[in-house]
Amino acid sequence: MALLERAQALQAQGRDILHLEVGEPDFPCPAPIMAAAGAALERGDTRYTPAAGLPALREAIALDYRRRLGAPVTAEQVVVTPGASGALQLVMAALLNPGDEALLCDPGYPCNRQFVTLAGGVPRPLTLDPAEQFRLSGERLAAQWGERTRLAMVASPDNPTGNRLDGAELAEMARWCAGRRGTLVVDEIYQGLCYDAPADTVLRHGDEAVVINSFSKYFGMTGWRLGWLVAPRALVPAIERLAQNWFLAPATVAQHAALAAFDEETLLIAEQRRQMLERRRTLLTESLPALGLPVVGGAEGAFYLYLDVSAHTDDSFAFCQDLLEKAGVALTPGLDFGASHQPERYLRLAYTCDEARLREALRRIADYLERP
Amino acid sequence: MALLERAQALQAQGRDILHLEVGEPDFPCPAPIMAAAGAALERGDTRYTPAAGLPALREAIALDYRRRLGAPVTAEQVVVTPGASGALQLVMAALLNPGDEALLCDPGYPCNRQFVTLAGGVPRPLTLDPAEQFRLSGERLAAQWGERTRLAMVASPDNPTGNRLDGAELAEMARWCAGRRGTLVVDEIYQGLCYDAPADTVLRHGDEAVVINSFSKYFGMTGWRLGWLVAPRALVPAIERLAQNWFLAPATVAQHAALAAFDEETLLIAEQRRQMLERRRTLLTESLPALGLPVVGGAEGAFYLYLDVSAHTDDSFAFCQDLLEKAGVALTPGLDFGASHQPERYLRLAYTCDEARLREALRRIADYLERP
Ligand SMILES: Cc1ncc(COP(=O)(O)O)c(C=O)c1O
Ligand SMILES: Cc1ncc(COP(=O)(O)O)c(C=O)c1O
Repeated sequence: MALLERAQALQAQGRDILHLEVGEPDFPCPAPIMAAAGAALERGDTRYTPAAGLPALREAIALDYRRRLGAPVTAEQVVVTPGASGALQLVMAALLNPGDEALLCDPGYPCNRQFVTLAGGVPRPLTLDPAEQFRLSGERLAAQWGERTRLAMVASPDNPTGNRLDGAELAEMARWCAGRRGTLVVDEIYQGLCYDAPADTVLRHGDEAVVINSFSKYFGMTGWRLGWLVAPRALVPAIERLAQNWFLAPATVAQHAALAAFDEETLLIAEQRRQMLERRRTLLTESLPALGLPVVGGAEGAFYLYLDVSAHTDDSFAFCQDLLEKAGVALTPGLDFGASHQPERYLRLAYTCDEARLREALRRIADYLERP
Repeated sequence: MALLERAQALQAQGRDILHLEVGEPDFPCPAPIMAAAGAALERGDTRYTPAAGLPALREAIALDYRRRLGAPVTAEQVVVTPGASGALQLVMAALLNPGDEALLCDPGYPCNRQFVTLAGGVPRPLTLDPAEQFRLSGERLAAQWGERTRLAMVASPDNPTGNRLDGAELAEMARWCAGRRGTLVVDEIYQGLCYDAPADTVLRHGDEAVVINSFSKYFGMTGWRLGWLVAPRALVPAIERLAQNWFLAPATVAQHAALAAFDEETLLIAEQRRQMLERRRTLLTESLPALGLPVVGGAEGAFYLYLDVSAHTDDSFAFCQDLLEKAGVALTPGLDFGASHQPERYLRLAYTCDEARLREALRRIADYLERP
């Protein structure tokens, strides 16, 4: 956060800053989604919707699971939310009682801690091992699961490592958790952004996991604030009541816009973007190791690379600060993603700007590292 | 909630239901706001904004306080949120530590309880007296303030009573709370909807209160999910951090749309609507007492009447159910607004449909009451 503000301040002063710290690609919102938003405006469709979202959107999401992803999801299991953020808040509150512990992958998405705390739960790091590319496994989960653990949370593909976990393996972990009166929550917000395998969902392999998703990333709808969750039917009424009280409803025009997300045309645009991101990833993974910046995570999905910077520093936060000041390149220090995985050795690079800018960033980083 | 669903089910069956239960007027979103939304779409302005909202919108809101309401508010005190709902969540969490008690007007807005609980606080009813039209006073506040009370919450104008409290009196109460290491939170979501006095804010009379507001009601932006809070500057960084973690940001197009809310043209439309609501109120307050349905609250603002139905029933919930089934008129039972004010004697009527429909509702209620 401090670095983000500093990057913006430097830019406001006229410095050319390369923003590799932002979790938001540079693509505009796809045209069919924008057109659907425009049509909703034309119709004046701007009133409150039901708390769980427009029935048509819940149905469209469920249909997409069945048709495109091959998972037997029904509309009643889907709750539309204000971003994956809203979904995470609801799910943590529905699954945790005060004092319950939640295992959060470390490194992992930083806000999860806050949602656990908000629900009265106790966040515990599910510490991952760089020797395993920070990849979660069933053994690791079992080893860190405790007496009071009721929930474990993993993203696939993941932020910040880009790790993609096998769907069947995730379903296996979900089953294991269920056997211990617990729940595996799988954040699939980067679901469509996979580079070595087709998009998958844990729900194709079993029905025990609770799934988080969003229109933000793959569908390029960040600022619309729209996501969803998929939960076992028995859990939905409680979640719906919470949504009614906390949010009243998700944003209306955004919901109408999102109805166009599963159109063929939109999916084609999304696929082209996935390919562009893949080219960026290749450029970077081929260049960074030669700079003494090996990629640690699997980098099979999302748009992040988690880099080991320990050849150059023992304090990745200070490194990020200095790189920003001296080279105008903004990156995110490992500290943002957890405290238990030796974060001072790592930093995250988000390839959310185009190849020309990425090449410029590589040049600047190389120059910076060559300085005496 | 059960009644709302039943009303919708009956309507889906083809019944003509008069919806006097919904807290959302029948007016469309004002044209200048829609035009600004359209322009944002044209520009493709759909990316994440800062967590506290667009600087231009924070400035526009602050300017409106200074110019139109005469309150010395600065942009740094304003945090833009996903509805007043988001503002309530943030404020409760920022002001309450686990175990702290919060006094909530009873009757009052039902979701407040949930926000207090979510923050780990303990909601306590601030029981109001029908002999005083359920109006909060400094004496009543002082009498119910306890050892562990850290916060009291009041809306002005209020839902469900329509009570408008004097701004100077509210500022006095805020000062009193501050003297007890507590805070008065004033929900001004119905601020512009006053019928006997000009719009006012507690912030014109002092700087101790924390204020909640929204574009939902006066500006007709319900489904856009956009509100704001005004807090003392010292409190803002903590609130901003929570907003960053829980919401990431408020909806982007909604924020650009809301920039048109304070335009002269929009304010003119809002004023015309206020006058229409005032005529509806007059129609109802002149007709309902003759049906044995006296108005209990002050009804000086918002679009609600709180009615005493005890001449006809000792169970307002059953009364609402029966009225819905037999007469097709949907109202909200007192139980929704608290348990400690003898809610079984009361119900809420929202005058959110036009005069012709309201006349029809009066006819149907009269017929229903005349049945043997
Ligand atoms: C793993 C993960 N989950 C959830 C979110 C929240 O996204 P949103 O609320 O925009 O859907 C993010 C955003 O960066 C993320 O990286
Ligand atoms: C008193 C009061 N506060 C807050 C809200 C929440 O409104 P929103 O989240 O749409 O701004 C409502 C909605 O009915 C209300 O009546």
